[in-house]
Amino acid sequence: MATTTAQNNLKNQLFVGSFIHSKKLNQLEYLHGASVCVDKNGKIVAVDTQCAGDVKKAAATLYPTLGEGWSEGEVVVQVAKEGQFFFPGFIDTHIHASQYPNVGIFGSSTLLDWLNTYTFPLEASLAEPAKARKVYTRVVRKTLSHGTTCAAYYATKDVASTNLLADLCLAAGQRALVGRVCMDTPLSPEYYRDESPAQSIAATRASIAHIARIDPAMALVRPVITPRFAPSCSIPLMQALGALAAETDLPIQTHISENKNEIALVRELFPVAATGAADDSYTAVYDAFGLLSSRTILAHAVHLSEAEADLIALRGAKVSHCPCSNSAITSGAARVRWLLDKGVCCGLGTDVSGGYSPSVLEAARLAALVSRHVAMGGDEAAKLTVEEVLFLATRGGAEVVGLEDKVGGFEVGKEWDAQLIGLGSVGEDGAVEDGDEDGNVDVFGWESWEERVAKWVYNGDDRNTRKVWVRGRLVHERK
Amino acid sequence: MATTTAQNNLKNQLFVGSFIHSKKLNQLEYLHGASVCVDKNGKIVAVDTQCAGDVKKAAATLYPTLGEGWSEGEVVVQVAKEGQFFFPGFIDTHIHASQYPNVGIFGSSTLLDWLNTYTFPLEASLAEPAKARKVYTRVVRKTLSHGTTCAAYYATKDVASTNLLADLCLAAGQRALVGRVCMDTPLSPEYYRDESPAQSIAATRASIAHIARIDPAMALVRPVITPRFAPSCSIPLMQALGALAAETDLPIQTHISENKNEIALVRELFPVAATGAADDSYTAVYDAFGLLSSRTILAHAVHLSEAEADLIALRGAKVSHCPCSNSAITSGAARVRWLLDKGVCCGLGTDVSGGYSPSVLEAARLAALVSRHVAMGGDEAAKLTVEEVLFLATRGGAEVVGLEDKVGGFEVGKEWDAQLIGLGSVGEDGAVEDGDEDGNVDVFGWESWEERVAKWVYNGDDRNTRKVWVRGRLVHERK
Repeated sequence: MATTTAQNNLKNQLFVGSFIHSKKLNQLEYLHGASVCVDKNGKIVAVDTQCAGDVKKAAATLYPTLGEGWSEGEVVVQVAKEGQFFFPGFIDTHIHASQYPNVGIFGSSTLLDWLNTYTFPLEASLAEPAKARKVYTRVVRKTLSHGTTCAAYYATKDVASTNLLADLCLAAGQRALVGRVCMDTPLSPEYYRDESPAQSIAATRASIAHIARIDPAMALVRPVITPRFAPSCSIPLMQALGALAAETDLPIQTHISENKNEIALVRELFPVAATGAADDSYTAVYDAFGLLSSRTILAHAVHLSEAEADLIALRGAKVSHCPCSNSAITSGAARVRWLLDKGVCCGLGTDVSGGYSPSVLEAARLAALVSRHVAMGGDEAAKLTVEEVLFLATRGGAEVVGLEDKVGGFEVGKEWDAQLIGLGSVGEDGAVEDGDEDGNVDVFGWESWEERVAKWVYNGDDRNTRKVWVRGRLVHERK
Repeated sequence: MATTTAQNNLKNQLFVGSFIHSKKLNQLEYLHGASVCVDKNGKIVAVDTQCAGDVKKAAATLYPTLGEGWSEGEVVVQVAKEGQFFFPGFIDTHIHASQYPNVGIFGSSTLLDWLNTYTFPLEASLAEPAKARKVYTRVVRKTLSHGTTCAAYYATKDVASTNLLADLCLAAGQRALVGRVCMDTPLSPEYYRDESPAQSIAATRASIAHIARIDPAMALVRPVITPRFAPSCSIPLMQALGALAAETDLPIQTHISENKNEIALVRELFPVAATGAADDSYTAVYDAFGLLSSRTILAHAVHLSEAEADLIALRGAKVSHCPCSNSAITSGAARVRWLLDKGVCCGLGTDVSGGYSPSVLEAARLAALVSRHVAMGGDEAAKLTVEEVLFLATRGGAEVVGLEDKVGGFEVGKEWDAQLIGLGSVGEDGAVEDGDEDGNVDVFGWESWEERVAKWVYNGDDRNTRKVWVRGRLVHERK
């Protein structure tokens, strides 16, 4: 099993070439001919823009300032070729690892019938260890290949396979939040339901304890308290999960305001008289149980009222925007600009398998497109730009999962979670030039860097993600 | 240069395995263990479902019924492996070949500013022969690699490079309608505008004549009369193009009702008093000039009135639905179900580069998603299924481009325009099994055929298109 403190005997590393990352919501920073030094612990220890892409010059300038282990023979050097660039790893703030085999399979369903028809049967079946290993191995490899260096995973209610998912993330070197799914109401079928609030909490504690054993410092993998969503949880379970969150200070993930029938159901299941909530809104329900905090990741947030969004902003809770899912199962078009304007921190989620794609780049693309559907409704300012969706996919996501101090950009002190992006270069004969892998992004040569990035966002896929690192470790490479 | 009657000395061919094609709008037909015989002219001469995928049995049963050239040593045999299937080639009913280098580059623009900022400068620059060759070579290769066996292309106003596009399609073996773009009003900048209606018509005739020379039987490539869109054309030009269409009986392609500002502009430019149209609607303008016929391909049709849709149905004009484009440049969400219910024939268009992707599969995916956005507006029945978007991509498209007797499905008498689709098979260890090319569609083994097709629609890309044939000729193969 991988250990995360020794970091597999990593060497110090020097990365040279073009680096692109978000400076702020609507601005990418382009660092060309730059150098980034990453130490044995995967931490960025130097960023230089003066060496004009010259490895020797970077080494001569930077190594002496960095001390032991920083000499030519000791450092692993990675140069981005002309036209390639380093980009921060993507952060998937909402993905059901257990549903991965169902991507694309949802028919014409909407949330509540989708759960019963497609989702619960598959999730329940992952109590079978060999099946869980097959599915979870695949989803970790798959998301890494798409540049997802960090994922907030929902597993299932089964402890053993939830723990296996955490083991697999750690072994593969993917940063992850891993949540054992809590649900004890008849919203879930009898064959896939916690027996009682007490059993749900005990099972959750067992999973938390396992993760604490395999990654005591939570260097890569951490547990996340996961009430599936309000309708799945009884009032006693909600209370107990709120108490567990207060006790452990762990992050929380759940769903909110995805679908109108779901919202009506919450209103019915959680009357103010029973919850003591401030009102009968979905948001107030979570708030009443101590589940709406700055450590809370709320997936969807499609149909929130003004008051709900204000309360989310007030509590500092975060939103995982899942456009692929919201369009696919006809949930609605989330108003991301409106949330951002209220100061709500937003990231992107693939929401596999309500979302049909394991790719955060696809989620970024759909975030841009769905925002245009919001704009068609009259709010021209709703449109999200390429720069903005890439911010959501990296820095926004980092803040959503509570790791904004560790990942999301290329600054000294952050950890090296990054991908090397390569695009196709079209030759005079109309063929893609040798040495470039076949892919869907064709650069003709006259495009600006901004245009190249836009081409990547709109036509890119895992073929453009040539290498992926997490905490300095190379965790994926296209052959 | 390829000739299309001799068909490059094709041999007779036998295809064996699973075949999937549209039976009707909402139904795919699955033929497993079937056999299809294709003769030297690329025509399907036998379809058999009795031989259980046994090549020897198929040969023994079918060859004797087919006569000369049908014996074991003479026939080229292609077997789809377990899990692979043959599918009709995709038909892109609306694509600007000249705009391909701009895919993904549109910023936050909408139609009219997009044209001036991004589109006209690029199109005009393709008057340079080397640039045109590079771009057109790439777009033909690219679309073939995505399974586009037939495309309705807009080139530019330049005759020589428009003719080059036709040459390249013919040489590469792609079925195509190739249109020289007509526009003589100040909607286009002075540097990219026909000098007069007469010059526009003369240039169009020159392109028509060229295509008649290179493919006299229009076996693969045919000209299409292409008024860019009403605001680009003066009334005399519209009149002359209507007359040319009547004289030549050629297909017509143009844009309609894409964007609200564009519609207002049409109303302003074409008052009833000047056109003699039945009313001042966009549709009535085309109708007034004889440009609304059963041979007309109308791209977009987003904001049509009831009366306009009824008139389109009455005239038998066809609609090219371009969801990627309509979302990307914020045009609107076309109501495809509503058009289909009125009896309007619809197909899919990538609309490169208003649309960001050259892939008809991506257009099919977006057609499904955009239809869900229409459904969010209240019309639950608006949702398009996987079966329906694949119908639009094949049979629907065939009818839109006037080739429904030749392509779109696997029946005796049709021509063999097809793709071989392969999906990834996940092994017990979570890796994709040997021999399967890496791609984005993961089949775990327990999925039904319907689910596999859904997975392909939602996560598939050109990697799944292993081989492509047009008129029996192998025109693309992934290495």
